[in-house]
Amino acid sequence: MAKSLVDIIQSIQPLDRNALSLARARQDTLTKPAGSLGRLEELSIQIAGIQAKARPQIKQKAVIVMVADHGVAAEGTSAYSQEVTAQMVLNFVRGGAGINVISRQVGARMIVVDIGIAGKTSSFMGIIKQKIAPGTQNMCLGPAMSLDQARLSIETGIEVVQSEINKGLDIVGTGDMGIGNTTASSAICAVMTRKTVAEVTGRGTGLSDEQLQRKIAAIEKAITVNNPSADQPLELLAKVGGFEIGGLAGVILGAAANRVPVMIDGFISGAAALIAVGLCPQAKDYLIAGHVSVEPGHKYLLDYLGLKPLLDLNMRLGEGTGAALGMVLAEASCRILSEMATFTEAGVSNK
Amino acid sequence: MAKSLVDIIQSIQPLDRNALSLARARQDTLTKPAGSLGRLEELSIQIAGIQAKARPQIKQKAVIVMVADHGVAAEGTSAYSQEVTAQMVLNFVRGGAGINVISRQVGARMIVVDIGIAGKTSSFMGIIKQKIAPGTQNMCLGPAMSLDQARLSIETGIEVVQSEINKGLDIVGTGDMGIGNTTASSAICAVMTRKTVAEVTGRGTGLSDEQLQRKIAAIEKAITVNNPSADQPLELLAKVGGFEIGGLAGVILGAAANRVPVMIDGFISGAAALIAVGLCPQAKDYLIAGHVSVEPGHKYLLDYLGLKPLLDLNMRLGEGTGAALGMVLAEASCRILSEMATFTEAGVSNK
Repeated sequence: MAKSLVDIIQSIQPLDRNALSLARARQDTLTKPAGSLGRLEELSIQIAGIQAKARPQIKQKAVIVMVADHGVAAEGTSAYSQEVTAQMVLNFVRGGAGINVISRQVGARMIVVDIGIAGKTSSFMGIIKQKIAPGTQNMCLGPAMSLDQARLSIETGIEVVQSEINKGLDIVGTGDMGIGNTTASSAICAVMTRKTVAEVTGRGTGLSDEQLQRKIAAIEKAITVNNPSADQPLELLAKVGGFEIGGLAGVILGAAANRVPVMIDGFISGAAALIAVGLCPQAKDYLIAGHVSVEPGHKYLLDYLGLKPLLDLNMRLGEGTGAALGMVLAEASCRILSEMATFTEAGVSNK
Repeated sequence: MAKSLVDIIQSIQPLDRNALSLARARQDTLTKPAGSLGRLEELSIQIAGIQAKARPQIKQKAVIVMVADHGVAAEGTSAYSQEVTAQMVLNFVRGGAGINVISRQVGARMIVVDIGIAGKTSSFMGIIKQKIAPGTQNMCLGPAMSLDQARLSIETGIEVVQSEINKGLDIVGTGDMGIGNTTASSAICAVMTRKTVAEVTGRGTGLSDEQLQRKIAAIEKAITVNNPSADQPLELLAKVGGFEIGGLAGVILGAAANRVPVMIDGFISGAAALIAVGLCPQAKDYLIAGHVSVEPGHKYLLDYLGLKPLLDLNMRLGEGTGAALGMVLAEASCRILSEMATFTEAGVSNK
């Protein structure tokens, strides 16, 4: 049985100081000019602190792709129709999507979760079926979901990541799919970062100027109707969020509670991180930003969380693609810390 | 027998238009919003054009690490002593250096070439021994090498990459080691990009303010003494270059002549690219910049070459580490182009 949300939040600890300090000291003995591997050195030290190991390792990897639909799509905020959500899940099942390709390359297990798809997925093999409801309600008319559903979405994420941890997991990546989910993410981002809706709202899958204005208007309406507060993250998720956003917030909290580093993907994963860190500020130390998305809100969100992205490749696909690529760098950082020779071992003069 | 430099330069062709156009068209049919994989889409199209294949692939990878010493080190331009060059090669042989670790991770063969190390390497196993001389001459007193040696260094690089191509090679990364080689690279960079020496000279392995001023003065003196010209790239290499820089220029030209993409690493590889592109402007299309280094001249050099780096991780180790990491992104880009399902294949609605 999954632990309750409160238990999980209370069990998230600070990074391990001893491991941080041992890793930092070892980096300075390796056969390279001090600091010359830059971000990779910092990353290895962070992962040492997360895993509480002086020589951390990244072998077993998983990308958890949470999928759900959004009632707000009825407002015409996406370039694609809602049926694409379920169609793309079938594409995941068959191995043809971007995240399938990159997961295969980087050696990550890919876990797909129907946490609230509008269409039927009962015939799809190999996905986790934890549908909370067939999509959220239209947040322009009232809350996207009930408070109970918001809590359940997070607990579902905790349960899914716990199950992967039981199989062996050194790092988890967050991924998403769901037509309309940049709309919900922009709403969460605007409320949390105190930016205007226009500043944090982008073209998603490819909106025209007119469609973008419609999307901004819908988000502003949803915020006016629901009046969410940054100080109440669970309510914020319920009012203007999505099931996959709650699910990914749960993945983050569940991983952090088990000292597993979390490679977050793009804007939707970032919105989930805002909810997770809102519920438990300590969880922030367990996050690594895989990349920065083209979505304009993503950089504000990363600044707010104090995260610097590893990659900047003009990507905006989601699905966990940026997280899966970022895992390669996390693995490299840990291998360097563990496998490189020291000056003494190699007989190399350190001057 | 290796082809002559002139033959190689004349055999470098433009990218294949048909493959470029087929790859571009296929990207727009894959199950993702158009353009949503950003730089990875562009990269796959470039590699298609290089390999002249509509569905390019990156399987067999090699990093060629050219190693040499620099007479200018006598001016005190490096934080490390010259003996470190040979010591680090022994570290390469034993598998303990940064590039060993990353090559193992990404599945790249690592080829180490003594093209001009001052110390003895005769007892080292598994390296290619093509020592042109035991280090260059001090460029503050006259040319670093003769014109014949400059030509020979490039032809050595061509021969080494040709030998790897004969074994099967889908992409090559450039790497370097050599105490004093940022000094030579800054000299080449200043002459080619028409920036001041101070603008393109950095702290290398970790110089103090005073040592940095000494390094700048040494480069300015070498340029005054030798009077190199941007219009004479072979003479430029001879006057203020290095054997490993010439060797890497040869790797670039030899790869381009065989339609093999070249992932260039940091500042030293960049200086080699300046020489290669100076000799054959068409070679530029075969280059991919793995990362941007902390060395201040690197960004000017990449701007001059019109290259945008894939990674920006505050690295400055050299050895090919940034190139080896960049290869993962090149492989991802080609896998996406080849392995992702199209909208039609997947039955996903493209609206």
